[in-house]
Amino acid sequence: MRASRYLIATQKETPSDAEIISHQLMLRAGMIRKLAAGLYTWLPMGLRTLRKVERIVREEMDKSGAQEVLMPAIQPAELWQESGRWTQYGGELLRMNDRHGREFCFGPTHEEVITDLIRNELKSYKELPANFYQIQTKFRDERRPRFGVMRAREFIMKDAYSFHVNAESLDETYQVMHRTYCAIFDRLGLDYRPVQADSGAIGGSASHEFHVLASSGEDDIVFSTDSDYAANIEKAEAVAPSGERPAPAEELQEIATPEQRTIEAISEFLKVAPTRTVKTLLVKSEADENGESGLIALILRGDHTLNEIKAENLEGVAEPLTMATDEEIEAAIGCKAGSIGPVNLPVPLIVDRSAAHLADFVCGANKEGYHLTGVNWERDLPLGRVEDIRNVVEGDPSPDGKGTLEIRRGIEVGHIFKLGNKYSTAMNATVLDENGKTVIMDMGCYGIGVSRIVAASIEQNHDDKGIIWPDAIAPFQVAIVTLNAHKTPTVAEAGEKLYEQLKQAGYDVLLDDRKERPGVKFADMELIGIPHRFVISDRGLKSGTLEYKGRRDADKQDVAIEDALPLLVKASPRKGL
Amino acid sequence: MRASRYLIATQKETPSDAEIISHQLMLRAGMIRKLAAGLYTWLPMGLRTLRKVERIVREEMDKSGAQEVLMPAIQPAELWQESGRWTQYGGELLRMNDRHGREFCFGPTHEEVITDLIRNELKSYKELPANFYQIQTKFRDERRPRFGVMRAREFIMKDAYSFHVNAESLDETYQVMHRTYCAIFDRLGLDYRPVQADSGAIGGSASHEFHVLASSGEDDIVFSTDSDYAANIEKAEAVAPSGERPAPAEELQEIATPEQRTIEAISEFLKVAPTRTVKTLLVKSEADENGESGLIALILRGDHTLNEIKAENLEGVAEPLTMATDEEIEAAIGCKAGSIGPVNLPVPLIVDRSAAHLADFVCGANKEGYHLTGVNWERDLPLGRVEDIRNVVEGDPSPDGKGTLEIRRGIEVGHIFKLGNKYSTAMNATVLDENGKTVIMDMGCYGIGVSRIVAASIEQNHDDKGIIWPDAIAPFQVAIVTLNAHKTPTVAEAGEKLYEQLKQAGYDVLLDDRKERPGVKFADMELIGIPHRFVISDRGLKSGTLEYKGRRDADKQDVAIEDALPLLVKASPRKGL
Repeated sequence: MRASRYLIATQKETPSDAEIISHQLMLRAGMIRKLAAGLYTWLPMGLRTLRKVERIVREEMDKSGAQEVLMPAIQPAELWQESGRWTQYGGELLRMNDRHGREFCFGPTHEEVITDLIRNELKSYKELPANFYQIQTKFRDERRPRFGVMRAREFIMKDAYSFHVNAESLDETYQVMHRTYCAIFDRLGLDYRPVQADSGAIGGSASHEFHVLASSGEDDIVFSTDSDYAANIEKAEAVAPSGERPAPAEELQEIATPEQRTIEAISEFLKVAPTRTVKTLLVKSEADENGESGLIALILRGDHTLNEIKAENLEGVAEPLTMATDEEIEAAIGCKAGSIGPVNLPVPLIVDRSAAHLADFVCGANKEGYHLTGVNWERDLPLGRVEDIRNVVEGDPSPDGKGTLEIRRGIEVGHIFKLGNKYSTAMNATVLDENGKTVIMDMGCYGIGVSRIVAASIEQNHDDKGIIWPDAIAPFQVAIVTLNAHKTPTVAEAGEKLYEQLKQAGYDVLLDDRKERPGVKFADMELIGIPHRFVISDRGLKSGTLEYKGRRDADKQDVAIEDALPLLVKASPRKGL
Repeated sequence: MRASRYLIATQKETPSDAEIISHQLMLRAGMIRKLAAGLYTWLPMGLRTLRKVERIVREEMDKSGAQEVLMPAIQPAELWQESGRWTQYGGELLRMNDRHGREFCFGPTHEEVITDLIRNELKSYKELPANFYQIQTKFRDERRPRFGVMRAREFIMKDAYSFHVNAESLDETYQVMHRTYCAIFDRLGLDYRPVQADSGAIGGSASHEFHVLASSGEDDIVFSTDSDYAANIEKAEAVAPSGERPAPAEELQEIATPEQRTIEAISEFLKVAPTRTVKTLLVKSEADENGESGLIALILRGDHTLNEIKAENLEGVAEPLTMATDEEIEAAIGCKAGSIGPVNLPVPLIVDRSAAHLADFVCGANKEGYHLTGVNWERDLPLGRVEDIRNVVEGDPSPDGKGTLEIRRGIEVGHIFKLGNKYSTAMNATVLDENGKTVIMDMGCYGIGVSRIVAASIEQNHDDKGIIWPDAIAPFQVAIVTLNAHKTPTVAEAGEKLYEQLKQAGYDVLLDDRKERPGVKFADMELIGIPHRFVISDRGLKSGTLEYKGRRDADKQDVAIEDALPLLVKASPRKGL
């Protein structure tokens, strides 16, 4: 491509409304433009990278045996009513009426449509397993779209859905997809981790997320220092402290703690480490058969935080997790939230494993302005139900017994789920098994955020000059910058010659033949992040050389003209798209 | 691809709700499935063809110098309000509100979005001309979606928009696009015609449609027998009859014609050919400065039909064309529509060229139940304004003076427009010209119905057994059918070997290794329309031969195994996707 005939829409200024580096650089490098909140146009430069990501995803999905289909973006409400999600799915579902008043939505995901298709098309276990995918524009009406294409409303997703006669078959395909995802993210040149995840609202029994590691990530992911254990923080198990609980050593005392309402304040006031205190959170219990729900107390060590997903998944706890209001607490306990504690509390307790291991601890006295010290389980109050309800912290032991946990930030770019029979039961998707018996199919689903990957790659690969693309998804692999070519025909000719030579060899080449100052051209090519750059100048040609610089190289080097292609082949063996 | 691991979703029965052959065959061959009215899922087999069409379109657009972008499907109402189309565009525009109540639509076309982008990005004539295209899912909420993907609501379109500093530059790019479209439709293997078209509601000064010729087409297109003149019937000029108008020979007479209300009835009753009669249509005139509109009479020869587009484009005629109601006619003329005529008619006349050439003609007497005969222009009534307002008929002289006109049916698959400055003026899209002066850009727009092409190709290429794909867009170019391979290992091996050999040579191959009867396999491959077929049988292998049959061939032929690839290369030199 000749830059003079291409939209090089670079910008010097950092756009004020772009918070994260990938959003800033995608705007500055002329990859995307905002149309409206969460809606972006992909300019030619950005689309080239997006298409390369799509292509790698498609090739690996094909290799895995999945079959590509294309379902409509617009979906009729009836199918969502059948699965129950028409009412469950909240404001993120963009709903509309057609000219005849029928209800539709812009699909954020396609479980209903594919399940409807497959229940009509497949009749026998002989046709299973089958895995269908598409690469398609989706819409989620995010309340607060931000970070550019990282959290856009309209985005491109690869979604796949597999169908099985039994759970073993689902498990096999799930493993194939796990390996396929690793192959995809390897080829994309990303530093990523597959982590165990909670399967959440989409339902099902097992799931893994694939995270690109980046400090700007919105998710906390947890690793073991000494094993390949990795999990989303929502899922990471906090194991019980080792050893026996220490024996009581102090007497139970009630102490006035006027105006001390937080763990930090109490800790400071009583000169007790937060690790020796407990906090008590009151949440709603599941409604009973009369539809009435009471309160449950969740007891955590003072320095720990509640893992809402773990709590919500517990039997007896209302879903979604609902904290008691100040009024409800005062009505039930007779004091404010800052003074409650587990001793003589008139509601059932669920005690976190770490809190359950404490002796001689501090807690609220259920009396405004008072706390108890020297509290001991079993002696001063029954221990009750012990569960894992907290978020892990760095240094916790790894649940697999090997090493301790580290926490890093990740950007979720892929997610695989065992859906089980959630949708196939709701929509009666069956086949005949080997015995001629009708069975509900098992399902898996597998998503990749194709457009998000472009941003995630930049979060991981950039410097103060701009983007640094991995070769596999660079919009162009090589830039040829000619200096003052409009005044120096030999430079223009040498540029054209190298351009043709590298194209012939299978590279995507951008010939920067614009009438711009050298500094402008260099800055643009670095901002855009093209991995390899040749500079052709009058001075160099006189000695038969070009200048080469890899985007990550500190220094440039002179190479003989005839060595340019061999050097590139060595630096970037992977040719073309 | 191995058929045993692929969704071969063929059906024997012709679906009852599919009216045209392409819709029937796409369903029967397992290419598409209906999700809801006008919404179709592309199954793997159909998607392969769709992607090949996309790829050809993309390659030729790239070759033309156009740059690919991807704009959002969802567009904010504000831009459509700026162009004026938010109110003009009717029920086909799928409108919706997001969670914050803001208005959006699912883009049926992208003039507003691209004009907004370009007015922000391009500042100087030096950056022009520029042509941007995308291949994208569009939505038009057709009142009566039908014919499968031929007239679906959700469909895939290639839309391109060019920007220019002046009309000459637009003209150049328009010619480039005309040539590019011919290259695309040539490569697609379609029998098509570019025809002059009315530029219609989208505005602008010139346009051509590209039609695939097929008897099921919804459009009439007009050709000269002796030149390359071709036009949409809406646009085709009806030239004035040659020579002088004959001199009057009959006297004007008023004749009672009780109950004779149509041209056919009058013609029969008076024993006069319809070509000697005129019919008079009353339409609304353009509103005057007070907003009041009267009536205008359109006078046509009795055997001709009104061309509504031509009439609507005339000065003085209300747009859209609005016929007077029976009440309005009776109020203005004092008789019913069947009895009106131009003599002493109290409204202005617009006379078609052919009607203006008549002498001694018959027309209504503006008196219930009476007609006039022997009517002559100038003698009995002033001729008034003469215009071309009729549809051409077969046998009319070609407007270019060469030959006569033929009319055939066409399916519109492409359309190129000179938009001029309609959108750039409304949205103030300017650049600085060579003199530093701000000028409104000229624009062109260029569409191709990508998904419609798949159906149009089938309308043109099928027989009683099914689809006959051109090699370039066949889902697979070659089928290898193995007979009883599960019982005959040598057949299975020979099949695998040929499969690998043809794949290596760059062909898209479907190995039909299913455990089905030979007849079922043959019928499926013919229904799906794969252009080349090899059959491997135990009997053949014993004599070292395979059987080959081209999809259009009457007979099969035996070929030595080693001659299979050379034969295929000869039959289908174009390899791979």
